[in-house]
Amino acid sequence: MLTTEVTKRLNIKYPIIQAPMAGGTTTSRLVAAVSNSGGLGMIGAGYLTPAQLREQIREVKELTIHPFGVNVFVPEIFTISQNAIDFANQKLQSIKNHLDIAEADLNLPDSRKLIETFHEQMDIVIEEKVSICSFTFGIPSKEVISRLKEHQVILLGTATTVREAFENQENGMDMVVVQGSEAGGHRGNFSNGHQESLIGLMSLIPQAVDSVQIPVIAAGGIMDGRGLMAAICLGAKAVQMGTAFLTCKESGAHKLHKEAILQSEENQVTLTRAFSGKWARGINNQFISTMHEDEVSFPAFPVQNALTQSIRKAAAVQNNPDYMSLWSGQSPRLAKIQTAEELIKDIMSQAVNIIK
Amino acid sequence: MLTTEVTKRLNIKYPIIQAPMAGGTTTSRLVAAVSNSGGLGMIGAGYLTPAQLREQIREVKELTIHPFGVNVFVPEIFTISQNAIDFANQKLQSIKNHLDIAEADLNLPDSRKLIETFHEQMDIVIEEKVSICSFTFGIPSKEVISRLKEHQVILLGTATTVREAFENQENGMDMVVVQGSEAGGHRGNFSNGHQESLIGLMSLIPQAVDSVQIPVIAAGGIMDGRGLMAAICLGAKAVQMGTAFLTCKESGAHKLHKEAILQSEENQVTLTRAFSGKWARGINNQFISTMHEDEVSFPAFPVQNALTQSIRKAAAVQNNPDYMSLWSGQSPRLAKIQTAEELIKDIMSQAVNIIK
Repeated sequence: MLTTEVTKRLNIKYPIIQAPMAGGTTTSRLVAAVSNSGGLGMIGAGYLTPAQLREQIREVKELTIHPFGVNVFVPEIFTISQNAIDFANQKLQSIKNHLDIAEADLNLPDSRKLIETFHEQMDIVIEEKVSICSFTFGIPSKEVISRLKEHQVILLGTATTVREAFENQENGMDMVVVQGSEAGGHRGNFSNGHQESLIGLMSLIPQAVDSVQIPVIAAGGIMDGRGLMAAICLGAKAVQMGTAFLTCKESGAHKLHKEAILQSEENQVTLTRAFSGKWARGINNQFISTMHEDEVSFPAFPVQNALTQSIRKAAAVQNNPDYMSLWSGQSPRLAKIQTAEELIKDIMSQAVNIIK
Repeated sequence: MLTTEVTKRLNIKYPIIQAPMAGGTTTSRLVAAVSNSGGLGMIGAGYLTPAQLREQIREVKELTIHPFGVNVFVPEIFTISQNAIDFANQKLQSIKNHLDIAEADLNLPDSRKLIETFHEQMDIVIEEKVSICSFTFGIPSKEVISRLKEHQVILLGTATTVREAFENQENGMDMVVVQGSEAGGHRGNFSNGHQESLIGLMSLIPQAVDSVQIPVIAAGGIMDGRGLMAAICLGAKAVQMGTAFLTCKESGAHKLHKEAILQSEENQVTLTRAFSGKWARGINNQFISTMHEDEVSFPAFPVQNALTQSIRKAAAVQNNPDYMSLWSGQSPRLAKIQTAEELIKDIMSQAVNIIK
């Protein structure tokens, strides 16, 4: 029951994928520890430059002989509205003052540059012979997909609805990660609107499984052997876990981020678009609640992300969790501080006990 | 694995409870068919007068010798704001015109009367020796709980968060139904706010199970043997299913309501408070989308429910699904028209196959 199409195809021992959390969480140590423990480690390359990505891939290769993957953001079309930027900056100013952030030149994201970076990331995946690549925020072009397939890269898409899962299949993805409403961090919806893409895994997994032929991987709120077995019962062939790995010892998440998760209750985890312009789930804090009223008027991703960057950076340096993005799924009560190996061992022994 | 504390205590064969859907869906035929098939049938008595409740209990007893239950709404304190009523009426008027609804005297709900009705319902449960009683929208007073317990009634509470599950336990409930964000119909939150109580079952079940000693019953998006087994893996001791029984042949739901579910996709099921003043999940239609912008300003339950009653009635009589409350959970793609017996048989054979 726990040896599936996914474990065979990805050449891993257990149907456990460490979610690619961008922004420094997926250190090489974490990725390698997961792969060395029988799961699939994933580099969250969303915010990495091509040079950084190449360096990290090489680092991970030094640490494991097992397969691992790279996740990238599919660049989206966005417009830059000076009005929305001015509005957001005005709302953010008092926080910047509070954190003593000096006025700095703002590097607004550039669509053309982001597309260029994406293509360079793909080049590196191919050149470095990474065997698995996953995508978030959309589906890449047919050309990119063909090119990766020619180089035997296994492709994983992300979907939040049955329709998005189907689109992933039709565009040639080998597997699809379905992201339930429970999931922490950024929402991966791209065809469907925010509200209509908040489907709980109990509903999303079986309906997706019935509608696509490619294997379905479940993500969202899964933290232990109970969640793994539940996902498998619903028809998933593997799970992708973020928050559970975020609090692992090897993760690069801020110490206060890990502590906030350990102290959080499930109903303190909320949805916000104030940090990045894209809806994401994290622990409610001063930043989220202050910005809540105005968040729908802020610029889209990745513009808002650029506007709040100095705040998130300063908050991290100053050890002030009130203004950090404390991403978490809806199961923070199940989080523990342990090594990735201990986590995977626990999951598997609990899972095996359930079906015994 | 499928014979649990819940099946033993409730004296039922299978860990399947038919959700108590108020408003005519849980006909005596449906309730009895579920109980006769090894599950637990539940009368949704929320909107029944004491006389109607007594009549239905007697009817069900004629149709089954097996246990069944009654669900009631715990009366809430509400205020009547003439401003909010005027605002809602103004917004509803064009729909009333469209449906040719004649101006009628409005019977606004009366808190005292509702509390009186609730106590009469409790009297009837005791007098008619109903062995199981469940509660929605709150926890009854210690006096009511003690009185029911003296008469050996088994008590089931409803919770949407770990905190609410714990409150149910501390107040003496024998079991607690945890309602995931996937669930159709009214949200059962009473201690926690709406947004913070939208927890997916993949997160809610294990966290609740870890925090209470009483058995946890899972509700929300569960439609088949896969959902049953998933809930059991997560630690639930039974499931409560609404939408799956709503489309059964014996259910009293409007034919067009059943058809709407069969034709719906999971992302067309949305949350609204426009029908009743309480957040509830149903299929998006003309009424919901027209009222969406103003819904937060409408009066609270059950005032708004009274204001929209004539619309829902007229829509039903005129076979116009645009203005009906088409409650559904997030798994409409898994719904089928069949008998309750067929549904339960299918669930159990699928569940047994999964763990084989």
